[in-house]
Amino acid sequence: MKTYLDCFPCFISQALRAARIATNDEKKIKTILDEVGMMLKNIPLGCPPPESARLIYHKVKKITGNLDPYKKIKKESTQKALSLYPFLENRLEKSKDRLLTAIQIAIAGNVIDFGADWDFDIESETYKVLEMNFAVCDYNRFKRNLDKAPNVLYIADNAGECVFDRILINEIQKPVTYVVRGMPIINDATYEDAVQAGIDRVATILSSGTDAPGTVLETCNPEFKNVYKDSEFIISKGQGNYEALSKEKRAIFFLLRTKCTVVADDIGVCRGDIVLKGPDDYNS
Amino acid sequence: MKTYLDCFPCFISQALRAARIATNDEKKIKTILDEVGMMLKNIPLGCPPPESARLIYHKVKKITGNLDPYKKIKKESTQKALSLYPFLENRLEKSKDRLLTAIQIAIAGNVIDFGADWDFDIESETYKVLEMNFAVCDYNRFKRNLDKAPNVLYIADNAGECVFDRILINEIQKPVTYVVRGMPIINDATYEDAVQAGIDRVATILSSGTDAPGTVLETCNPEFKNVYKDSEFIISKGQGNYEALSKEKRAIFFLLRTKCTVVADDIGVCRGDIVLKGPDDYNS
Repeated sequence: MKTYLDCFPCFISQALRAARIATNDEKKIKTILDEVGMMLKNIPLGCPPPESARLIYHKVKKITGNLDPYKKIKKESTQKALSLYPFLENRLEKSKDRLLTAIQIAIAGNVIDFGADWDFDIESETYKVLEMNFAVCDYNRFKRNLDKAPNVLYIADNAGECVFDRILINEIQKPVTYVVRGMPIINDATYEDAVQAGIDRVATILSSGTDAPGTVLETCNPEFKNVYKDSEFIISKGQGNYEALSKEKRAIFFLLRTKCTVVADDIGVCRGDIVLKGPDDYNS
Repeated sequence: MKTYLDCFPCFISQALRAARIATNDEKKIKTILDEVGMMLKNIPLGCPPPESARLIYHKVKKITGNLDPYKKIKKESTQKALSLYPFLENRLEKSKDRLLTAIQIAIAGNVIDFGADWDFDIESETYKVLEMNFAVCDYNRFKRNLDKAPNVLYIADNAGECVFDRILINEIQKPVTYVVRGMPIINDATYEDAVQAGIDRVATILSSGTDAPGTVLETCNPEFKNVYKDSEFIISKGQGNYEALSKEKRAIFFLLRTKCTVVADDIGVCRGDIVLKGPDDYNS
């Protein structure tokens, strides 16, 4: 997805939110806003937003010296999500279509996002999403492609959300490689978040190497790029990964809840909708 | 009111909105965002936001060459407001306390704001505000001060809103000087907007000379400053004027609807609340 003009106010908002999480020093926060303001002119509209957001979060880290401001928040999100795990399993047991329900559960976990959103309650949002209808639901293509695939590349989004992903990974019943960020960035899942969520019991965890809040391929390590190149079936979670990968001509199925009008408009749905979107230009 | 850190994303949002109203040229809009981004570092936290917003809107005018992008919108707002005038008068007729109802009507008109807000329906918002309770209501002080005052200085906010102000001016039953901006800025009322609303029939219209979206005194003309200096009773409409004048030690009564959390927090109310706020540090 390209960077839209509407992303620019959001870049400043994100810088402010991240700065406040990283420090209480108002002078440092003002410096961050000043410097991110000056960065706007270098943000190209042709690149996906996470590519630029990455540089903005670098600036926050550099000025505050806080390399992982969301560490505590991430841990708490995972604990909260783990406490919901029995409820999620129970929901799956009662379901008529276990795979579809597992997909919906995985999307419900995508409410845990401190980048685009801010003010949310994991529990009540989960219940809400589980009652929603999909705005886009390429479920039949998803199933068809999954059946044919020898294995699955599952690109994670946020810490806490990993717990919800476990439910879907269990239902997939194929070998799954679960991809996490290479470095802490906002509340995105890294290796230790995935382990805390118990992903190591159901999948092979692989770092993409990126420190962007989305799988910006240019910033990924060769190991991930090789696996990605050979993958026949890819699940991509969340907005950041959608923004980074939506133009790829690959069998990528995007599972997300839209949290801003820019991404919602790009997909052609409303903000807050839940989406299971298959590839546009791919013969699947 | 000082400039809060939360004002910075809003400066970029405002620049984007104003730019889009002023031009369809995406390159020019991007240039505006780039240049406003670079301006952030020069925005002092100690000054009220309209002082900086003024420079941002200057930039939009300079780059687009469009000196009055809201001209058509303002005209339409006034026409829409005039169509509601009989309903507003009728509401007043049925009221138990005509002055208080007239104040509430004047505040209802404050929903017409293309600076802070964007997406609103004048008619339904008016009905809504007329049913609301005040979050701050210094009505007794307002009445007491008004009774003693030989005349009233009434500082206007937006075009269209002027029509609602007419209702209150009629109820005041004292000589009123109605203050408008000196130059077009967003949809703020200028001389011709006030005349279109029929203010010239009920008050003397005076330009403050400012081209800021708020009565930033340093940018006002000597004529207004003289009248302001001698005024014993001042009504200030809307957020922009609140932001510019809230620290003044004068008998200013602020009538507004809060449209952002920054102003709401500064007053100590919630966003969307209606407020009739007397001076803090003034013996009234």
